[in-house]
Amino acid sequence: MNYTQLAQNIKKKKSFLCVGLDPDIKKIPKHLLSEKEPLFSFCRQIIDTTAPFAVAFKPNTAFFEAEGASGWQQLEKTIAYIKTNYPEILIIADAKRGDIGNTSAMYARTFFQTMQADAVTVAPYMGSDSVTPFTGFDGKWVVLLALTSNNGAFDFQFSEIKSGERLFEKVLKESMNWGSKENMMYVVGATKAEYFKDIRKIVPQNFLLVPGVGAQGGSLAQVCQYGMNENCGLLVNSSRGIIYASGDLDFAKIAGEKAEELQKEMSEILRSNSIN
Amino acid sequence: MNYTQLAQNIKKKKSFLCVGLDPDIKKIPKHLLSEKEPLFSFCRQIIDTTAPFAVAFKPNTAFFEAEGASGWQQLEKTIAYIKTNYPEILIIADAKRGDIGNTSAMYARTFFQTMQADAVTVAPYMGSDSVTPFTGFDGKWVVLLALTSNNGAFDFQFSEIKSGERLFEKVLKESMNWGSKENMMYVVGATKAEYFKDIRKIVPQNFLLVPGVGAQGGSLAQVCQYGMNENCGLLVNSSRGIIYASGDLDFAKIAGEKAEELQKEMSEILRSNSIN
Repeated sequence: MNYTQLAQNIKKKKSFLCVGLDPDIKKIPKHLLSEKEPLFSFCRQIIDTTAPFAVAFKPNTAFFEAEGASGWQQLEKTIAYIKTNYPEILIIADAKRGDIGNTSAMYARTFFQTMQADAVTVAPYMGSDSVTPFTGFDGKWVVLLALTSNNGAFDFQFSEIKSGERLFEKVLKESMNWGSKENMMYVVGATKAEYFKDIRKIVPQNFLLVPGVGAQGGSLAQVCQYGMNENCGLLVNSSRGIIYASGDLDFAKIAGEKAEELQKEMSEILRSNSIN
Repeated sequence: MNYTQLAQNIKKKKSFLCVGLDPDIKKIPKHLLSEKEPLFSFCRQIIDTTAPFAVAFKPNTAFFEAEGASGWQQLEKTIAYIKTNYPEILIIADAKRGDIGNTSAMYARTFFQTMQADAVTVAPYMGSDSVTPFTGFDGKWVVLLALTSNNGAFDFQFSEIKSGERLFEKVLKESMNWGSKENMMYVVGATKAEYFKDIRKIVPQNFLLVPGVGAQGGSLAQVCQYGMNENCGLLVNSSRGIIYASGDLDFAKIAGEKAEELQKEMSEILRSNSIN
């Protein structure tokens, strides 16, 4: 999926919602545990009820890996299910990978070829040759960590560098040499809304993947006020606030309702910013 | 495995060799491809011939993941095979993980409980709460990226911070608050041997996992000159130089010979440093 298609999907669905799929075996409704593939069953039902309101799904690999080879198979099935039934929805493998070149190339093969994810989250610490193996695939995206939503973000990401910038700003600037708005997005946490203005000065065009709304306490209104560009340029993620809104038989229905609530807020924001 | 046990194993085996298991389906000997589990078969045979000369094995998750769920299963089997047959050898899952707290906790569950790895490599960019979920397991280790062996290391890791230190030094200093020499090692590339002196000033005791000898061009002698402490304190990794030394029927035998060559060099270095 390219930049224009993603921007068009946002206008068409009046939504920039990304639904995070974090299927924790200890949190999913108990009645699913008797099924052979409870993580996939959980995700499949969430996908069906939330798809009308979302432009992206973000399966978090950690929650699948924790169930071993079967979990990995359920991750593959989840991605294939989205691809088959909702081909217009962007699939972000939230994997936070990144290694020396030959190893990053293997990860790219995993997520872009063995699976058919459209995007993968990548950590920047190891620099250019750990990231560029992901950028050579047509219509596929790197989502590079810039400013994350957690408290640990303050340990290194805000370090002031002698050149006068902070580390997350250096990551943004350097990485612009590794790709373009067509294959590079950035993770910027909703809990750091006040920094979106600085970030937009460096990367005015790129899409930003924004976790941290909901359970982590970020504000949708503030994120949009400072982070939105003329193509929207945002994918705002909610995971726990949607998928665990109910832990009962009605979990998928309630997830759909929570997704719709967010989509309605987003529709209003898009309208008031004349993005339609 | 705790610090003392690891240090003792090094003395006993007169080796600080870590054998990196990077089973690339496109590089392993062709005769293995007709087997049902070629990656596991390849690793198992390498493990058997190199185990006498090694104190650690480092399966690289990327190469297994690229083969999908079956690859993941072969990773689990590889780790279980080492655990069963060579329980005195440290198993480092080279996964370069790291995410917000609840997600890192899932990765820790994956590698320390679902599998039985002893250690996992972790990227520091997301800070303390992305790393500490890995440090709460008795006898298990975080191997934190500090100074990596690739060229991309120069993009951010050497950034000079206003406080006067470089980013990799800040990572070392900060992370000392998150664990101890009993549960925290650091990745320091052999290609950056001249920095080992600075690094040892900050972390004199911790084990360092040193990739980059062999295919990547690092020098074992230099690494030891600047990086060794009184307990050795080094695990020097070789992957491609051992496992792909022959691509033929004799691959495992030749891998064993390459491992033995390195072990002999290491034995000599240990002896000349009175570590025995």
